[in-house]
Amino acid sequence: MRKKIVILGSTGSIGQQTLEVLRKYSNEFEVVGLSGWENITFLKEQISFFKPKMVVVKNEYIAKKLKNDLNNLNNIEILWGLNGLTKIAILEEADIIVVAITGIASLIPTFEAVKKGKKVALASKEAMVVAGELLVKEAKLRDAKILPIDSEHSAILQCLKNEQKDYVEKIILTASGGALYNLTETALKNVSIEDALNHPTWKMGKKVTIDSATLMNKGLEVIEAKWFFDIPANKIVIVIHPQSYVHSMVQFIDGTILAQIGEHDMKIPIQYALFYPNRTINNLSRLELAKIGQLTFKKPNFNKFPCIKLAYQALEIGGTMPAVLNGANEIAVTAFLNNQISFSAIPLIIQNTMKEHKPKQNPNINDILDADYWAREKALNFCMNNK
Amino acid sequence: MRKKIVILGSTGSIGQQTLEVLRKYSNEFEVVGLSGWENITFLKEQISFFKPKMVVVKNEYIAKKLKNDLNNLNNIEILWGLNGLTKIAILEEADIIVVAITGIASLIPTFEAVKKGKKVALASKEAMVVAGELLVKEAKLRDAKILPIDSEHSAILQCLKNEQKDYVEKIILTASGGALYNLTETALKNVSIEDALNHPTWKMGKKVTIDSATLMNKGLEVIEAKWFFDIPANKIVIVIHPQSYVHSMVQFIDGTILAQIGEHDMKIPIQYALFYPNRTINNLSRLELAKIGQLTFKKPNFNKFPCIKLAYQALEIGGTMPAVLNGANEIAVTAFLNNQISFSAIPLIIQNTMKEHKPKQNPNINDILDADYWAREKALNFCMNNK
Repeated sequence: MRKKIVILGSTGSIGQQTLEVLRKYSNEFEVVGLSGWENITFLKEQISFFKPKMVVVKNEYIAKKLKNDLNNLNNIEILWGLNGLTKIAILEEADIIVVAITGIASLIPTFEAVKKGKKVALASKEAMVVAGELLVKEAKLRDAKILPIDSEHSAILQCLKNEQKDYVEKIILTASGGALYNLTETALKNVSIEDALNHPTWKMGKKVTIDSATLMNKGLEVIEAKWFFDIPANKIVIVIHPQSYVHSMVQFIDGTILAQIGEHDMKIPIQYALFYPNRTINNLSRLELAKIGQLTFKKPNFNKFPCIKLAYQALEIGGTMPAVLNGANEIAVTAFLNNQISFSAIPLIIQNTMKEHKPKQNPNINDILDADYWAREKALNFCMNNK
Repeated sequence: MRKKIVILGSTGSIGQQTLEVLRKYSNEFEVVGLSGWENITFLKEQISFFKPKMVVVKNEYIAKKLKNDLNNLNNIEILWGLNGLTKIAILEEADIIVVAITGIASLIPTFEAVKKGKKVALASKEAMVVAGELLVKEAKLRDAKILPIDSEHSAILQCLKNEQKDYVEKIILTASGGALYNLTETALKNVSIEDALNHPTWKMGKKVTIDSATLMNKGLEVIEAKWFFDIPANKIVIVIHPQSYVHSMVQFIDGTILAQIGEHDMKIPIQYALFYPNRTINNLSRLELAKIGQLTFKKPNFNKFPCIKLAYQALEIGGTMPAVLNGANEIAVTAFLNNQISFSAIPLIIQNTMKEHKPKQNPNINDILDADYWAREKALNFCMNNK
């Protein structure tokens, strides 16, 4: 029997690549739900190919337009907004929910899917960053599985496969270093938006690209790694690897390191999550190390890139603090992209916001949403005063 | 209960390092047998520390001398020669037989241990190279386990752990390239013994070091890999990696590569084989990729190093041909080390010997020994005529 799949964020980059993978394995998977938010043209193409039973868009207006355009083809149920997302995330017949919505919006649908014991393939960083503890606890309780769609955590998952957790000495997250790694501290103060967006290896959205340049992206991945693999923060380290071919590593208690290596292609971790724990043949391009010639590694400089330190701090403090880190970061990055603050102000805004937060331990989902909201407001304030 | 271990070749480099590992895990392992051949002083130290029940040396004379020296301490049974080795290799109470004898002498004891269903930790290349098919068949029949003590095959074993065999697209053996990799074909013709012995990364015996310089070592490992992992030769490739930190890799059908990385320390694969499938903590030095800085990779040049081609040929022809390859190589390397033939004559001697051999398929142990003997005689002849 084919596995039934729902994709939240099907018109985004990961969503599209997920559908590209699914097109090749139509004997194994059936797409039963899509959420596409605003991009109707794209969504209509996807609907006509995959014929899902339920579709979610941003609002009632878009839903009506889509219904009209489709001429109620195949009796597709069209919903909208967070209510729609929540409903499609727990679609009775769905086996796998791919969550590829950007931002905090992924949190509630992910939580709902986990509560229903679904297998969740998680591309959205935010859900795990802000609510990792809660999601993991709930997943255990409901026998849900949360799998990473993300080259680093997919690499770690593969290195850990069938190894015991207490064999792990260190998780070694690789970081490209982003666009600005080789600049001096002084030069970092005057970075332009264009410079910060010029990522050396991966083509991604603006927000993630800036997070790569500040190395916050790696900090958020440290938090994710803790929750995905139940490994304490002091066992998670970062190494700069500019070529981004080694997607991450695990060092074991006997000194052995296992590394997962491959092309810069998100379809590899997407496919791995969909078929997990199995592997399936594909015709994606193969990495040839002899052609690449060299892989290089450096220690990260936490002083030059204080966002990493902030992420470790937020993780150590726990509770609602990671949500504050994430919320403040989103605001600060937006402000930088709008030319409202400088590049080096990003960590300052986050730090100041974190300083004023009184973290709540063992938060429920509402506590986390409150903290996120609070952090955004606070950070926005700091951004405006910074100007 | 402690696992009982016999070590064949305890005074050699791998034997000594095995005992070094075992010293640290005396709660887990008990050494019940040692074979030490000629180095009595060393052997006596080992005996007084580990108190084995059975010891094997080279001949009756040495056995008597040892017995006398020990003053029959603890009623140790002292045997000699191939009969002694065969007896200790099937010692009733032994759980694990570590085979670390150099050369073809490892074959019969290994075969006997496998026939008794022992767990064999195999450091000797030759047994698997000349009789892989037979050993693997016998191991299946007797439910014996043959585990590699060798950085490359240990790496592959770890990358393959709990992955399905049909997920393997390629085994990627790494090769340092040996002492001479960057020389031109012309320069290779006039290589001195000292140059060839100057290995860049691993300190090993002379024979193995020359095998590294000719790349025959890697050819033999291709043959071993086929039998250890039941993977056809066309799925086993070689990549030059001068730093020797990536001990080998496996590429899977989804394009993912897993690599095992670590220090140049044979105690790591020794420990892995002894504890397999578990891992155990140690205080060996940890590899820091950020300190090393870079790992490089190149395509091997089969024309410059024809021994690799010969090894693939021998594997393809099968039967007794790998035994002939191995036997002729041993003679040619000895002749080179004795200044009797040039470096570039080594592959020629092997090739000529292989050409004259009529391989026998599905050989039994005697067929293999015959082929080995025949090849040595033939190759010696070629060496003498070459002078």
